[in-house]
Amino acid sequence: MAGTDQKIHDANETEPPVKKHKVGGDAEPQANGDDLTDLSAFRADRILSCDSRNKTIVAVGSFGAADPGQRALVILEKKPFDADGFDKLCTVESSLKKVFRNDVYGNYDCFIERELNAVKATVIHPASDKHIQKYETQLIHIVEETPEVYKSVTLPYLENEQLNLQWVYNILEHKSEVERIVFEDEDPSVGFVLLPDLKWDGKDLKSLYLLAIVRQTGIKSLRDLTADHLPLLQNILTKCTNIINERYGLPTSRIRAFFHYQPTFYHLHIHFTYLQYDAPGIHTERAHLLTSVINNIQLVPNYYQTITLPFTVRQSDKLFTVLNKKGILA
Amino acid sequence: MAGTDQKIHDANETEPPVKKHKVGGDAEPQANGDDLTDLSAFRADRILSCDSRNKTIVAVGSFGAADPGQRALVILEKKPFDADGFDKLCTVESSLKKVFRNDVYGNYDCFIERELNAVKATVIHPASDKHIQKYETQLIHIVEETPEVYKSVTLPYLENEQLNLQWVYNILEHKSEVERIVFEDEDPSVGFVLLPDLKWDGKDLKSLYLLAIVRQTGIKSLRDLTADHLPLLQNILTKCTNIINERYGLPTSRIRAFFHYQPTFYHLHIHFTYLQYDAPGIHTERAHLLTSVINNIQLVPNYYQTITLPFTVRQSDKLFTVLNKKGILA
Repeated sequence: MAGTDQKIHDANETEPPVKKHKVGGDAEPQANGDDLTDLSAFRADRILSCDSRNKTIVAVGSFGAADPGQRALVILEKKPFDADGFDKLCTVESSLKKVFRNDVYGNYDCFIERELNAVKATVIHPASDKHIQKYETQLIHIVEETPEVYKSVTLPYLENEQLNLQWVYNILEHKSEVERIVFEDEDPSVGFVLLPDLKWDGKDLKSLYLLAIVRQTGIKSLRDLTADHLPLLQNILTKCTNIINERYGLPTSRIRAFFHYQPTFYHLHIHFTYLQYDAPGIHTERAHLLTSVINNIQLVPNYYQTITLPFTVRQSDKLFTVLNKKGILA
Repeated sequence: MAGTDQKIHDANETEPPVKKHKVGGDAEPQANGDDLTDLSAFRADRILSCDSRNKTIVAVGSFGAADPGQRALVILEKKPFDADGFDKLCTVESSLKKVFRNDVYGNYDCFIERELNAVKATVIHPASDKHIQKYETQLIHIVEETPEVYKSVTLPYLENEQLNLQWVYNILEHKSEVERIVFEDEDPSVGFVLLPDLKWDGKDLKSLYLLAIVRQTGIKSLRDLTADHLPLLQNILTKCTNIINERYGLPTSRIRAFFHYQPTFYHLHIHFTYLQYDAPGIHTERAHLLTSVINNIQLVPNYYQTITLPFTVRQSDKLFTVLNKKGILA
């Protein structure tokens, strides 16, 4: 699954199953666009977002008459440059067209060989309303979630909207993505699986992004963590940083290990990125460093059942409506 | 200079003029690479930076024998997509190569027509040491600062290297920037001055950035905060969010209020930004939400004297050398 956007896993996770995998059977869905060789059949109805910083564009549309009544999302993202491949760009094939010059500064349009300038394309097909909502630019609010708000609003909400975690169990049970596993600790209590996040191509260390998924089921998020989980958290911290150090040459001081709150799926997992990677979801209102979580629990064993935790919610989310009705948003 | 990178403007301004324009005369510099039609003459000596989020790469090198002794910088940046031009991408010319599929999610490499996939190229030539320094990525490390490390290393270091705080006192004493003050609470104990951060133009709400500087002197940072400061923190939170709401129409739920640790100056101050502004310094390893700080102190009055706090340090900083010598970096 190398090379996909995390958002897709996210969508997958917050999504009621669009199509159920038959366990042990033919798990390949049918209407899957597997035969795509060009995009010419796709008709965009609407641009959902266009980000000039990340160089992404997301369109919703359809594959026309051959595929009636189905919607699809096409997500295009310019690929990062390859630091080792710079010389390949400096050939006569890379023609320059002057835009302007001023003193020592020259600005050009550069046309690179097509094969060296691929765009990452993600197609979600068929796409549900939730997929579409997920990619649409939204107003965001910060919520101060007291333990009471968690118990009375967030928890019932997330239990009700329960996400399909089958893809997580598939990974833990070696039913899918086995070849992507970087490291595995099979201990049922403190064990985990470490694998590249969908955002990461598994190669460019500057955007290193791995995910540790715990073996234990039933730990939904940060909110559930107590002193009982310290051995699990310590084990993941120690082993994952060691492995990342050995395998990718990054010392612990150059790794960012963190939880999301709210997470995108409610099976405990920890994100590992290169510290200098400006990854999505690392802002202070969403990311909680693993070391800080351990420190907090060591200081106050029921810290995460006691403290008010901030999280962000999109104005279009059902949860926003629920919180707003109860007057919880400031 | 439309279309140039802001960084270049900065470099231009902080730079002694490399070549003087003759007013009214031939203002075109000579060694300017104006005749560039391809990059094939450029030989990269070193990659200075490669950013996978912004999709940029910067190399320093030279244009070879034809241009002896001169260095040049080549900055490449993938261009954003054009929201109005999406349909042009969906042609038979945009071929797809499958990377993988899983359920409704398909991931492809997409090869777009060369003319529709230009890269922005900036050439700085000749390039000075300052140009090069400006574009070079610094290695950054995360430090787990225990209270003992704070007392034995950070505190003596910052007391020794203390930056002059006169500019802060000038603001508090109305000796400068009086006209920039947005709001002021003159109470000597819980008072503060709220004014736009230098990064903000004071207009564009999407990049709203204000700074609340406390009246009390002697509170260096987060590390000094105890239950004694709760009235101060509460006062700032309430009044600043009210004022931002009144003046800029942003409700509290759309404001991010936070401390930096380490701060850039050691007189207590709090940052206020628009929540959806991807401002510098809002990553979890540096930013601490004001509400979370209040909550932590309410839970454990001496939380910030007890807890291990992470902070980041550049490998070129003197503090890094000190910490490294003492074996504090992981």
